Amino acid sequence: MEDTFVDWLLARLPTDGRLEVPPGDDAAVLRPPAMRRTVVTTDMLAEGVDFLLGDGPGRCRPRDVGRKAMAVNLSDLAAMAARPEAAVVAVTLPRDDGEAIGRELFEGLLEVATAFDVTLAGGDTNAWEGGLVVSVTAIGSVPPGRAWRRDGARPGDAIVVTGRFGGSLLGRHLSPRPRCREAIAIAERFPVHAAIDVSDGLSLDLARLARASGVAAWIAPEEVPIHDDAFRAAAAEPGGRTPIERALGDGEDFELVLAMPADAAEELLAAAPDGVELAKIGGIVAGEGLKQQRPDGSLATLPATGFLHRFDEEAG
Amino acid sequence: MEDTFVDWLLARLPTDGRLEVPPGDDAAVLRPPAMRRTVVTTDMLAEGVDFLLGDGPGRCRPRDVGRKAMAVNLSDLAAMAARPEAAVVAVTLPRDDGEAIGRELFEGLLEVATAFDVTLAGGDTNAWEGGLVVSVTAIGSVPPGRAWRRDGARPGDAIVVTGRFGGSLLGRHLSPRPRCREAIAIAERFPVHAAIDVSDGLSLDLARLARASGVAAWIAPEEVPIHDDAFRAAAAEPGGRTPIERALGDGEDFELVLAMPADAAEELLAAAPDGVELAKIGGIVAGEGLKQQRPDGSLATLPATGFLHRFDEEAG
Repeated sequence: MEDTFVDWLLARLPTDGRLEVPPGDDAAVLRPPAMRRTVVTTDMLAEGVDFLLGDGPGRCRPRDVGRKAMAVNLSDLAAMAARPEAAVVAVTLPRDDGEAIGRELFEGLLEVATAFDVTLAGGDTNAWEGGLVVSVTAIGSVPPGRAWRRDGARPGDAIVVTGRFGGSLLGRHLSPRPRCREAIAIAERFPVHAAIDVSDGLSLDLARLARASGVAAWIAPEEVPIHDDAFRAAAAEPGGRTPIERALGDGEDFELVLAMPADAAEELLAAAPDGVELAKIGGIVAGEGLKQQRPDGSLATLPATGFLHRFDEEAG
Repeated sequence: MEDTFVDWLLARLPTDGRLEVPPGDDAAVLRPPAMRRTVVTTDMLAEGVDFLLGDGPGRCRPRDVGRKAMAVNLSDLAAMAARPEAAVVAVTLPRDDGEAIGRELFEGLLEVATAFDVTLAGGDTNAWEGGLVVSVTAIGSVPPGRAWRRDGARPGDAIVVTGRFGGSLLGRHLSPRPRCREAIAIAERFPVHAAIDVSDGLSLDLARLARASGVAAWIAPEEVPIHDDAFRAAAAEPGGRTPIERALGDGEDFELVLAMPADAAEELLAAAPDGVELAKIGGIVAGEGLKQQRPDGSLATLPATGFLHRFDEEAG
């Protein structure tokens, strides 16, 4: 009887004072930090939907999948202003070459976990005839009542975003940089009424924030920071979507969208904590749905575009 | 823009005082119980490996998958003597008929969660061309230093098991009854040095406990409680494995295996808390590996049999 792959995994995991029982038991036992809430999020990535394994354009290595699987979960913690603490990983490996894929996947998971001081606390390894599926559950902590929610945006709030948007499929989508440190730095000094991270599309995720809050959100398109990748993607596809359309709808930017009091937004932009790029792109008004500000200042409807992980792929 | 399936899910979730932020945000926010450790476990079930959807022999409904996905995780919490608190669920649904499958799956998840007072705190829903994959992460709590570990068995300990073993594939494997309440009742009154739940096979899981503890475990085969299903399965396959072989190697019994001081084991068997069926089936000695007690009292090697979720299916 040998569980060689699991033994290999366990031997690679550093010890961590947050664990009362080390990995390898029926479950992990964590010492929750005193006086903090526990924040939990889970995301599953599946081959053929979220990534294609292999070499060549549009394909990636298992290590990239591991990095991304950890990073997208940490991005969800960032959207709550939570400090990352621990993660567990469930994986179903292809039976062909599964052990090699599993090792490389794990190296990617561990790389991002280490970079963000996350302890890999446990997991579950399976094999099947299908493609690679990996599910990470990340656990963070936040002071009571201080988690950023989606549903707190109020009319008069400004919309502030981190980073730049669009064209992530040129490669950036595989190595998202979760804004954990930036979120915590902002949360410590500035009031934020609502937050979300951009996984499916800036406009779609902002529309979700607005809907949860029972308000309308507007964007000034000329204020949206467009990533170089969006220009490159547009240039490579003449007649296709414009850079701003890509910025609003491509998704997988894993940047933060914050709704906060207008004066606090000004202070935040002036302070620029941690050197992160910040931009005010719009605001919140009474009503519902998503709007764009016309040059004359009036508001028109803006379709929410992005990726819906359901039974139809494009939201309209 | 409509997230109708997710909206349907969220509307079905009861409110729960353990949640500071309700489901539907980027992450769940839990109030961890004071003075307790956090116990975390994750298990992924994949179509074609852990279940076959459909009607007819050996097949099951999405609702069964939901029940099982929740129950196997709660069984891991039981093996730590942890009280179940919350769960998050990541699922990738087949694109064909995925929404109907998802709804039925969720009903099964919620049924078991409700029965064990687990709050469904959040999740992630995806769709693809492949089979159904569901990953549950369950979160429990336990007083500091009181979690049952695998690695604490000592020579002289008795091996006590709950329930009966073997033949689970006749249908019992789809509706495991996690021994959460029994584990907590035992942990409150009796010293337990090590514990594991039987997912892959009584002998294989006991061998894992022995290996983690750096000791040998022995079984008296005539003391192993054999489930009626093991007799039925053996009768249906003349010349196949015997009932005791099935009890030792079939797995998916989701019963508990406990290593505890011999005198405490006697007291536990006499007390039989909560009416659960308990049996002493063997003990712990110095050395390594798995043994069986011969009628003359001597020990012979016993192969550890069961299901290995790796790249070969049978352990030897």
